[in-house]
Amino acid sequence: MLRYSVSMSLDGYVAGPNQGPKHPLGVRGELLHAWMRELAAWRKMAGLRGGVTNASTKILTEDDGQIGAVIMGRNMFGGGPGPWRTPPWNGWWGEDPPFHLPVFVLTHHPRKPLECQGGTTFHFVTGGTRGALRRAQTAARGRDVAISGGAGTAKQFLAAGLVDEILIHLVPVYLGAGVRLFDDPRLARVALEQHRVVPAPGVTHLTFRVRRHARART
Amino acid sequence: MLRYSVSMSLDGYVAGPNQGPKHPLGVRGELLHAWMRELAAWRKMAGLRGGVTNASTKILTEDDGQIGAVIMGRNMFGGGPGPWRTPPWNGWWGEDPPFHLPVFVLTHHPRKPLECQGGTTFHFVTGGTRGALRRAQTAARGRDVAISGGAGTAKQFLAAGLVDEILIHLVPVYLGAGVRLFDDPRLARVALEQHRVVPAPGVTHLTFRVRRHARART
Repeated sequence: MLRYSVSMSLDGYVAGPNQGPKHPLGVRGELLHAWMRELAAWRKMAGLRGGVTNASTKILTEDDGQIGAVIMGRNMFGGGPGPWRTPPWNGWWGEDPPFHLPVFVLTHHPRKPLECQGGTTFHFVTGGTRGALRRAQTAARGRDVAISGGAGTAKQFLAAGLVDEILIHLVPVYLGAGVRLFDDPRLARVALEQHRVVPAPGVTHLTFRVRRHARART
Repeated sequence: MLRYSVSMSLDGYVAGPNQGPKHPLGVRGELLHAWMRELAAWRKMAGLRGGVTNASTKILTEDDGQIGAVIMGRNMFGGGPGPWRTPPWNGWWGEDPPFHLPVFVLTHHPRKPLECQGGTTFHFVTGGTRGALRRAQTAARGRDVAISGGAGTAKQFLAAGLVDEILIHLVPVYLGAGVRLFDDPRLARVALEQHRVVPAPGVTHLTFRVRRHARART
């Protein structure tokens, strides 16, 4: 099963405007993750102390062990357009990335796999969404595959009808500008079924299953 | 308390595109109300038999007796731009409108009140949002005032910081075009607090309270 989860504002944005080094999630985009940053479970993963335990804790931790591989876009790995630099840069993720899993990075530029500490290996795949999914599913050995972002990559998979489950963390903020998740006309072919709703402080976790994808219609 | 409730698609639309006599809610807009039309409680109000009872029933019926007056825009009453016709048309609502309450219609063109059967009287108010709210609150005699739409009217009240509670019926459909609720930059001044979440078949009912409205900022 291919899964995607993302925090979204009430006005439909998954990142604020003007994303860049100063604002990785765009201006005011950090508001989307406030619910997560206050969790003790998240803070522990980030090496921080303190935090709370609430209904979001289960949402954050229930996938532990269920995910067998991760897919991400090149920007999410840390890239930018054009070929890889020489010597190649190793992304945003440091020496011990938090995935501890095989990660498949979509790119147009071939590159050798990058093995990191802690069990994370970045594989650079040039075969498009379907090729990346095939390789990730093989690596996951029966467990689920998660799309880790960014939004553009997730939208490619959604629009192609390849995503089986979407988990939206709906946050009651208004961003007014930025990157929308649901703005690709190809999504008209994707029918969602509401599967689970979990209210929590400052966020509602909405799980949808993809029920139908009419490939024939456009 | 001024309240507004509306059905919204996952991509943020409260009506589909090309609203008109053929599609009062816009193309595919009727998908937004599918959760309501299947309820026995709604069907009974509409003079229809059958239907189901589920978690949405309470949402639909809990306001009975709590609302003392209704506000709506001129299009919602029935009327396009410009002065009222002579003799004036009596709107979409027939001889016995379903409100059974005083209804305040925002318009730029004065007109005498229109008293209907069943306790509904339409008052035509030319004093803008604040004037309409003042008159509706007086008429409500301590009970709540509900904005009945359309979206443009609701957005005026939201952006002016006059709404106290918003109930969004979030429906997992993709409309792709139409009328958005949250697309007015003045909404950046409105801070919402998640108050209640009720999952139901095919819809999630999200109640937000307006927590802060910084009139000074723009």
